[in-house]
Amino acid sequence: MNYGKANAAVIEELRSLLGTGNVIADEERMEAYSHDETSAEEYGHMPEVVVTPTTTAQVAGVVKLANRFRLPLTPRGAGSGLSGGAIPVYGGIVLSLEKMNRVLEIDYANMTMTVETGIVTNEINNLVKDKGLFYAGYPMSLETCFLGGNIAENAGGGKAVKYGVTSRYVLGLELVTPMGEVVWLGGKLAKDVTGYDLTHLVVGSEGTLGVVTTAIIRLIGLPKAKSDLLVLFRSPSEAISCVPEIIARGTIPTSIEFMDKLSVETSCKYLNESLPYEACGAMLLIEMDGSDPAQVDLDAEKVGDLCMEKGAIEVYMADNRTTQERVWSVRRNIAEAFKVRSPVQSLEDIVVPPASIPEIIPELDRIASKYGISIPCYGHAGDGNLHATLVKDPEMSMEAWKTAEPEALEELYAVVVRLGGKISGEHGIGLKRKKYMAEFMSPVELGLIKAVKKAWDPNGIMNPGKLFDPD
Amino acid sequence: MNYGKANAAVIEELRSLLGTGNVIADEERMEAYSHDETSAEEYGHMPEVVVTPTTTAQVAGVVKLANRFRLPLTPRGAGSGLSGGAIPVYGGIVLSLEKMNRVLEIDYANMTMTVETGIVTNEINNLVKDKGLFYAGYPMSLETCFLGGNIAENAGGGKAVKYGVTSRYVLGLELVTPMGEVVWLGGKLAKDVTGYDLTHLVVGSEGTLGVVTTAIIRLIGLPKAKSDLLVLFRSPSEAISCVPEIIARGTIPTSIEFMDKLSVETSCKYLNESLPYEACGAMLLIEMDGSDPAQVDLDAEKVGDLCMEKGAIEVYMADNRTTQERVWSVRRNIAEAFKVRSPVQSLEDIVVPPASIPEIIPELDRIASKYGISIPCYGHAGDGNLHATLVKDPEMSMEAWKTAEPEALEELYAVVVRLGGKISGEHGIGLKRKKYMAEFMSPVELGLIKAVKKAWDPNGIMNPGKLFDPD
Repeated sequence: MNYGKANAAVIEELRSLLGTGNVIADEERMEAYSHDETSAEEYGHMPEVVVTPTTTAQVAGVVKLANRFRLPLTPRGAGSGLSGGAIPVYGGIVLSLEKMNRVLEIDYANMTMTVETGIVTNEINNLVKDKGLFYAGYPMSLETCFLGGNIAENAGGGKAVKYGVTSRYVLGLELVTPMGEVVWLGGKLAKDVTGYDLTHLVVGSEGTLGVVTTAIIRLIGLPKAKSDLLVLFRSPSEAISCVPEIIARGTIPTSIEFMDKLSVETSCKYLNESLPYEACGAMLLIEMDGSDPAQVDLDAEKVGDLCMEKGAIEVYMADNRTTQERVWSVRRNIAEAFKVRSPVQSLEDIVVPPASIPEIIPELDRIASKYGISIPCYGHAGDGNLHATLVKDPEMSMEAWKTAEPEALEELYAVVVRLGGKISGEHGIGLKRKKYMAEFMSPVELGLIKAVKKAWDPNGIMNPGKLFDPD
Repeated sequence: MNYGKANAAVIEELRSLLGTGNVIADEERMEAYSHDETSAEEYGHMPEVVVTPTTTAQVAGVVKLANRFRLPLTPRGAGSGLSGGAIPVYGGIVLSLEKMNRVLEIDYANMTMTVETGIVTNEINNLVKDKGLFYAGYPMSLETCFLGGNIAENAGGGKAVKYGVTSRYVLGLELVTPMGEVVWLGGKLAKDVTGYDLTHLVVGSEGTLGVVTTAIIRLIGLPKAKSDLLVLFRSPSEAISCVPEIIARGTIPTSIEFMDKLSVETSCKYLNESLPYEACGAMLLIEMDGSDPAQVDLDAEKVGDLCMEKGAIEVYMADNRTTQERVWSVRRNIAEAFKVRSPVQSLEDIVVPPASIPEIIPELDRIASKYGISIPCYGHAGDGNLHATLVKDPEMSMEAWKTAEPEALEELYAVVVRLGGKISGEHGIGLKRKKYMAEFMSPVELGLIKAVKKAWDPNGIMNPGKLFDPD
C-alpha cells in the first residue's frame, strides 16, 4: 500500500478545517501520541500530524481529507491500550478523541446515556450512580481509559462473568465511515433485526472500520449490595480448579479474579499494601452482588464454603467498602506494578473455554522453567481469560531473552490452540499480536475479515497495520 | 442479476452429490417449500429444486454448484418464519436443513451445546433440563422452529427482557460461506476479541451471508423458581404505561407480555380457554424467576403492588405449573388464532425505545379508526416490541383493504420512525418488509450492508431478494 505524506499543504488544510489549536505538528508534543501502554521501544511510531477535532463534522472532514491524500489515519482514545492499536505505525494522521467528551443525553426512562467517545469511562458511572444506575461494561482501567477505546477493543472487565463485556452495553453508535460519511447505527432499542448488526461489527474492530464518535450505552440498576471474598489457596492449580465449579453451581458471581502469589506480592509492594500472601500460592477474588444484602451474603457464604471444600486455606470476607477497595486496588494495579518491577515483559491476554483453565497453569510452569523466565499469571479466571505475563528475570541477558521470549510465546499459544482458545480476550490484536493471527484463525476467516475491511475502506486508510498487514 | 436455471443437468448433478433421496424435484412435494408462515398467496414462490443435505460437506458442495451455475440458493429451517425469509423468490435451489439435526456435544463443564442447526429449538431444552440447564434464547415458536431459523433472524422471545435474544447465546458457528468454503467462527469462549466479531454479523443476516450448519450455544442455569402474574387493566394505555416503571424499579422480570382484549379473546376462543378478559381492556403477563422461591414470590408481589398502584383492576398470581402453562398458551397462540379468525392481515413487528411504547397505543387507535380496520396489538412490551396486526374486518371489501392496508402501514411506520424505532424487532426484514427499509435506514447504512454482502457473495447467490433487491 503506497501512502501519501502529511506534508505542509496537508497540515495547512487541517488547520483551516479544525482551527490551529486542534492541529499538533511539533515533534515534542506529538511524542505522547506515538505509543500506548505497550512498550514504546518495541512498538512506538511517530505520527506526522495529530488532530483533536471537536465535532463529528470535523472528524468526517479529516477522514475525507485522508482519503483524498491517501494518508493513514489512526484514531486514538486515552492511549491506555495494551496491543498497540492506537499507534500510527504507518505515520500519517493521529486523530485523538480527547476533546470529544460531551454527555449528550441521560435518558432515565430508557436507561441509556448518549455520550461522545472521548469520555473517560468512569465518568459515566459517576454521573448516574446517585440515580441507582451504572454502566456495567467497563474494564479495569476505567479511571483513565476512554469509552471509545473500550468500544474499539470490545473491552472486558472485572464484572464480565455476570454482566458480559462492552458490546452488550453498546446499543447504538455514530460512525464516521472510512470514506468519511456519517451514519447512525442501532438505537435505544432492546432488540432490533432491521438489517445486519453493523453496530456490533464495529465494536471490537479496533478502529479499522471507521471512527466511532458517539455511542448510546445501556445503563442497568446498580446492585444494592455486594460482597467480596478473598480466598487463599496453596497453589495456582488448586485455585483455578475451583473456578468452573463456582460458575456451574448456584448464583453467578460478578467477578472471579485469579492472582498467583507473585502477582499479589508485586502489586502489594508497589502499593505498599499488605495482603496475606506469604502462606499461599494463589488467590481468588470473588465478588457477588444483588438487590438484597442478606441474599448476597448467603450467596457469598455458599461460594466460600465451596472453596473450603475444594481445599482453600482460608476465606476472608471483605464486607465493607474500604476493605473491598483495598483488595480490588491490589488486583487492578498488578500490570502497573509488574512494569515497574521489570519493564522487559510481554503481557498476554489468552482466553480458553472456562473449563480448560486448570490445564493452563501446569503448562505455564513447564514453559517458564524450560526457558528460564518467569510467567506470573493473573486475570479474569471466571471468563477463562488470563493475563499470563512473560517476564525477563534480572539475571537473564537481553540477548537470551530475545531468543527465549518468542519461543516461549509460541509454546504457550500452541497450548491455547489445543484447548480451543484464542489469542486475545479483551486487549485486542492491534500491532502486538497480528503476526500470530494465522495460528488462531483459518485463512477463510481472515479472508472474510479482509473482505469486509476492503469493502468499507477501499483506500486502506483506517488504522492500517492493525489486525493484519495492509495489502 | 441474471440467474441460471436448475435444469435437468443441475438436478442430475445434485443427485449424484447428495443421493437421490436428498433431491426433491416434483412439484407436489416442492409446494411445501414455496412459502413460510407469511401469506403464501402474497409471498409464495416455487423452488426449482429442493435439497436436503445431511452433512456440512454436502452443503458446501451445493453452494459451490450454485456459484458455478449462478443459481439462487435459499436456506430453509422449519419454514415458521414471519417475513418470507425462506421463500425462494428467484426460484433456484431451496436448501432445507431438516436432516441436519444432530446433537454433536453437550459440554456440561463449559455449559455449552454443539448442535446442527436443523434441530427443533425446544429439543435443546428437553435434553438438558434434567441437568438444571436451559437455552435462554428461544422464541415463542420453540416447539416448531429450528435453531437455524432463530440464528438467521436473531429471534427474540418471551424471556428477552431479562435474558436477551438469540445472539447472546450463540458462541460460535460453522458457516458455509457464499463461495462454498467451510469456516468455524467463535468458540466456547466467554469473551473473544481475536478479529472482527463475524459470528454476530452472521447471526441475524437472514441467510444472505452463508449457511449456518452447526452452532455452539451457551446454556445457563435453569431458574429454580418462577412466578407468573396476569394483570388486568381497563385500557391498553394503562397497561402499557406500567411497563417502563416495572423495568426501572426493582428486579428485572423475565417477561413482560402485553395483550389487548381482542387478542386475549381471540386466542381464548381458538383454544376454548377462559381468561377473565370480559371486564378488562388489556392484560400484562409478567414472569419473574430466580434461584430462591421466596425471593421470587416477593419480587412478583412487588410488581403486582406497583401495577395496582398504577390503576390495574386485578392481579392474578399463577403460581403453579398448570395455570402458568394455561396463560402462556393463550399468549403463544394469538398469532395462530388471528389467522383462523381473519386470514387477511399483516402481522407487524415494530420496536421502539421501551419508554415510548405508551405513545404507540393511541396512534394504533387513531389509524384503525381512520382506515376502518382493526389493529389488535400484543407482544413483548418489556422490549418495546409490539406485534400490532392490521386486520381486515369481515364487512370490508378486498378492494378497499388493498388501498387501506399500505396507507395505514405507512402511517404506523411514520409513528415508529418519529419515536426512534425500527421496522423489525425479531421477525426480520426478509421479503415482506424490504420495500420499507429506506424509511428506517439511511442510504449510508444500507450501502455498508450491501458492501459486506457483495464482498462475501460476489455472485449474489445466497438468499437473493431478502433485505434488499439484488443489483
